[in-house]
Amino acid sequence: MTETPAGGALTASGSDLHLELPATGGRRAALMAALREAVRSGRLTPGTRLPPYRVLAADLGIARNTAADAYAELVAEGWLTARQGSGTTVAERAEPVAPARSRRAVPRPRAAHDLRQGQPDASSFPRAAWLAAGRRALTAAPNEAFGPGDPQGRRELRNALADYLARARGVRADPERIVVCSGFAHALRLLFEGPGAVLPAPSAGSLAVEAYGLAFHRGLLARAGVTTVPLPLDADGAQVDGLAGRPDVRSVLLTPAHQFPTGGPLHAARRAAVVDWARGRGGLVLEDDYDGEFRYDRQPVGALQGLDPERVIYLGTASKSLTPALRLGWMVLPEHLVDRVLAAKGEREAWASALDQLTLAEFIESGGYDKHVRRMRRRYRDRRDHLVAALAERAPYVEVSGIAAGLHAVLRLEPGTERSVLKAAAYRGLAVEGLADYRHPGVGPAAMPVAGGLVVGYATPPDHAYQAAVAALCDILPPPV
Amino acid sequence: MTETPAGGALTASGSDLHLELPATGGRRAALMAALREAVRSGRLTPGTRLPPYRVLAADLGIARNTAADAYAELVAEGWLTARQGSGTTVAERAEPVAPARSRRAVPRPRAAHDLRQGQPDASSFPRAAWLAAGRRALTAAPNEAFGPGDPQGRRELRNALADYLARARGVRADPERIVVCSGFAHALRLLFEGPGAVLPAPSAGSLAVEAYGLAFHRGLLARAGVTTVPLPLDADGAQVDGLAGRPDVRSVLLTPAHQFPTGGPLHAARRAAVVDWARGRGGLVLEDDYDGEFRYDRQPVGALQGLDPERVIYLGTASKSLTPALRLGWMVLPEHLVDRVLAAKGEREAWASALDQLTLAEFIESGGYDKHVRRMRRRYRDRRDHLVAALAERAPYVEVSGIAAGLHAVLRLEPGTERSVLKAAAYRGLAVEGLADYRHPGVGPAAMPVAGGLVVGYATPPDHAYQAAVAALCDILPPPV
Repeated sequence: MTETPAGGALTASGSDLHLELPATGGRRAALMAALREAVRSGRLTPGTRLPPYRVLAADLGIARNTAADAYAELVAEGWLTARQGSGTTVAERAEPVAPARSRRAVPRPRAAHDLRQGQPDASSFPRAAWLAAGRRALTAAPNEAFGPGDPQGRRELRNALADYLARARGVRADPERIVVCSGFAHALRLLFEGPGAVLPAPSAGSLAVEAYGLAFHRGLLARAGVTTVPLPLDADGAQVDGLAGRPDVRSVLLTPAHQFPTGGPLHAARRAAVVDWARGRGGLVLEDDYDGEFRYDRQPVGALQGLDPERVIYLGTASKSLTPALRLGWMVLPEHLVDRVLAAKGEREAWASALDQLTLAEFIESGGYDKHVRRMRRRYRDRRDHLVAALAERAPYVEVSGIAAGLHAVLRLEPGTERSVLKAAAYRGLAVEGLADYRHPGVGPAAMPVAGGLVVGYATPPDHAYQAAVAALCDILPPPV
Repeated sequence: MTETPAGGALTASGSDLHLELPATGGRRAALMAALREAVRSGRLTPGTRLPPYRVLAADLGIARNTAADAYAELVAEGWLTARQGSGTTVAERAEPVAPARSRRAVPRPRAAHDLRQGQPDASSFPRAAWLAAGRRALTAAPNEAFGPGDPQGRRELRNALADYLARARGVRADPERIVVCSGFAHALRLLFEGPGAVLPAPSAGSLAVEAYGLAFHRGLLARAGVTTVPLPLDADGAQVDGLAGRPDVRSVLLTPAHQFPTGGPLHAARRAAVVDWARGRGGLVLEDDYDGEFRYDRQPVGALQGLDPERVIYLGTASKSLTPALRLGWMVLPEHLVDRVLAAKGEREAWASALDQLTLAEFIESGGYDKHVRRMRRRYRDRRDHLVAALAERAPYVEVSGIAAGLHAVLRLEPGTERSVLKAAAYRGLAVEGLADYRHPGVGPAAMPVAGGLVVGYATPPDHAYQAAVAALCDILPPPV
């Protein structure tokens, strides 16, 4: 369009191209970015001939070499095409692209009160103590800590966990049996999912599970092709005597310390019985110890794993005790399964950050972890006490089931009222979950009566929002029938 | 054995049990730990009757309540059995367990010199700058950062990556298209492995790959059931024109900036051609930009992804530029694949640590990442120069193939000599890899001549060990034929 002093049939000069280079910084990179952007936005269409580099250089006030280099780079990248005798043109395939729609443009409406279960109070993460542990750990770490790492997990963390789990949870946790992973779901995947799984479906048999549990876990197992067989629950926990009549079952997943979500511990006789079953059957018990550190009325019952480390896979995580943001969990395995889990995990995919592993090891060794757990135990106990007291005053007919433990409580509801209570909660801006979603679809009412209930995560809100959330909860509870 | 004042047929008193409690700390926990250990070690065999708690308490000089509590706990845990009238006995199922063998008792012999490819110099990790970024990031983070997190990755990191990748690599990387994962292998798994994969085999067709590549990646793909079709390489990179004759191929995995491991860039015409192929075929190009930041002779060629973000999946990682210990990678996806990758990733498995993600975001935004990359670029360039100079002096007949880039170089060897050179290296205590292991087994000599070579990872050793490693390498190179 412009006839420049250099002559030639130019379709555009630098200024027609609306190329604006920032006042500072590398000229060459800036010119390349501006040209790419002009092509992307469609201002320069495929086939458009560009001015010779020396013209563009003069026009933009930059060195000729710089413009020539930028053209050459963009040719190498495929944005431009250079043909002997016909100059430089915009390449045919460099089509403009519509900007990606923003998938979060409309944010989800946020609940005024959040009592969903499953997470610790995010505002209580011990930032300063964690950072201090990180500084000590990373300063002292050997150089190899910044290399590819051990798929089993950092030795420092496995040592710290072995001591801690033996002391706090009665786990027989020799560091050689520990495999660090990125949380409970990752552990389930390693055990059940994919061709390299430790217990691949269907050859590894069915998996018995508790009649109530996380739908997320059931879904993960179903996608992995695992058949789950529900064990009804009663006041003593899962009815593990039912295992005897199911020859297809080869392993059982339990929450012995604190049934999730209904809240009772597994009776001592059943703890013993399920280990006996595993021995007789050549089977495995998977012990999900998701919140074993949090018991408020007495010392926690120790882990089942201690009864027979060769028959129990112990599964723990920092997600409840510290934060789910770390993505750190651990498996304490029977000796004969360690290599198989490592094979499933993969050599070059240590998954959990080695830097976080080092920091957690130091946090445990220095006593910071215990201190944090003690602090949170007091806080959650106070919250549970407040919930129980508020209910006693405002809805004394509502039973809080389960032991004084964990990060959630179950409020029993009259049969048939759960759905309407959840509706009232949603209307009131209260996020809370009903018990029905936790029930295994394979459990008939004859095997176990259907109970209505609310699963109340009292750990979730920050301190300042907790009392209002409980008040909102009391507001929506139905009057006695 | 001892007749105690309390009478009764006791099999053991506290001292006979060899229970030793530490002088300080909780008596109850200590007694429980000591009893568990006695059962585990086999000193207390199943069926053994224990002394009444009051006898044990007197014997150990502890409160009666403490001993009674400890017994009750251990009964609840299944270690002991309490029967009305017959006292407390060691439970039948509490068998002693052999300590796990130490699988690392015999450490692998370590090489004197390590020139294996695939990792940055672990001694160069910027500990202080990283810790400082972590302190700023974690101090400033909102509380929700310590909650369950966004499976797509922290918004802070996706914003920082979008800016950085556009600026440094010419990637069109809107934050909405970025999914954070735990590295390249995790990205491959999300795309190809399992029932929830984005490109499940066999329905998603075959995957074309370069004739040379990591056996680890081929293995991962093979286990996922993916058929890989090798594209021969020549001086212009992968022969992508071969895609036209393979209607079964629906996607292609390339290392366009720096072919891994042979070291050349993909020619501009082929960059354009492969994008055209993807458009015409409705296919996808997977761009593995594993070391795109490291080019020593000129500016790196920008990412292929910029040519068509709807047809190219860009895969990047911090493993080469910073450290593999972080387990952090990123995918820049075509808009239509974002939701499918997130579905494969799983809602509750954000995998990569949110704390590391926040720290990396701050490290990038504050310029620390650029500074580190510049520093390492100089260091690796110097190392490559030293390698080339040493070879020119001591083995001038050995060709260093590929461009001046990356963290490794390939030394060409005469056909048929690779195996004996590797043997000599092992004898000399030099860890280095041969080219043969990288060749796709499906490439015949007619499609591409077999070349011998060594893949030399010059980034791997710490500075002080590098010159000796290169000297050892020169020592084992064969004389010219």
